[in-house]
Amino acid sequence: MRLSQGVEWGLHCAALIGQLPPGTAVSRRALARHFGLPESYLAKQLQAMVRAGILLASSGPHGGFRLARASSEITALDILEAIDGTAPPFVCQEIRQQGSGAAPARDCKAACGISAIMASAHRAWQNSLRAIDVDQLVAAVPPTLRARNRRQFAKATR
Amino acid sequence: MRLSQGVEWGLHCAALIGQLPPGTAVSRRALARHFGLPESYLAKQLQAMVRAGILLASSGPHGGFRLARASSEITALDILEAIDGTAPPFVCQEIRQQGSGAAPARDCKAACGISAIMASAHRAWQNSLRAIDVDQLVAAVPPTLRARNRRQFAKATR
Repeated sequence: MRLSQGVEWGLHCAALIGQLPPGTAVSRRALARHFGLPESYLAKQLQAMVRAGILLASSGPHGGFRLARASSEITALDILEAIDGTAPPFVCQEIRQQGSGAAPARDCKAACGISAIMASAHRAWQNSLRAIDVDQLVAAVPPTLRARNRRQFAKATR
Repeated sequence: MRLSQGVEWGLHCAALIGQLPPGTAVSRRALARHFGLPESYLAKQLQAMVRAGILLASSGPHGGFRLARASSEITALDILEAIDGTAPPFVCQEIRQQGSGAAPARDCKAACGISAIMASAHRAWQNSLRAIDVDQLVAAVPPTLRARNRRQFAKATR
């Protein structure tokens, strides 16, 4: 079970944009340089976040990516699911209904209990990430670094 | 992010063995037939559970796999980690320390805040599965099915 590497990129990019004055757009190139990431791969994650309504893309000399909603309205789960998808990690193949021990249909009206246990664990994971918004991602960045980032991007993007 | 298919097999096998009188051993062949699973692939999951101290394997005409500990002492998380490994789904590549925005060493003494948020979500998932023992996996099987399984395996394995 492993999340795609782009999840880390997406969370850091959202945290960086969230540190800047509201409405600031940061170009794909500037984001890639800032984190030392391959620009073409990063483009995919940024586009996924645009499609999910997390980022807004604008073109032109001052264009780039900015938050599409208030930072308090974007959760870590939103970013994760935009990049890694919403499929739960446990896929029930209904093995209770196969083989010589196959459960009869009357015992399979409710979801398989084991599948329900796995779904409950996934909800616990989702709830933990739903409780984190971009403001909290920003707060996870040391204050000295945030101040430096604001100075850097004030020059670079305005 | 996806768990290996063997996780479902391992959980169902533990739940089946847990339904039978304590100490009952079930052969690999009987488990494979019961759930309609390929015996050679199932063997890998069973061996992983033996290595993790969840199952005990015995040979001979009445040999097979039985629980290595009391059913209340084996958790769903034990089974999952035996089969799918213990690696957390989020792997922090420390992108905070790379690129033109690399954080200086003095700001990186603590774990990256984003990595800590992801670790916390993983703990929530683990805690949810750690709260489920084999007795609860057994309870997730409909009572009529449990009674049928006990009858079937009383003949097959004793």
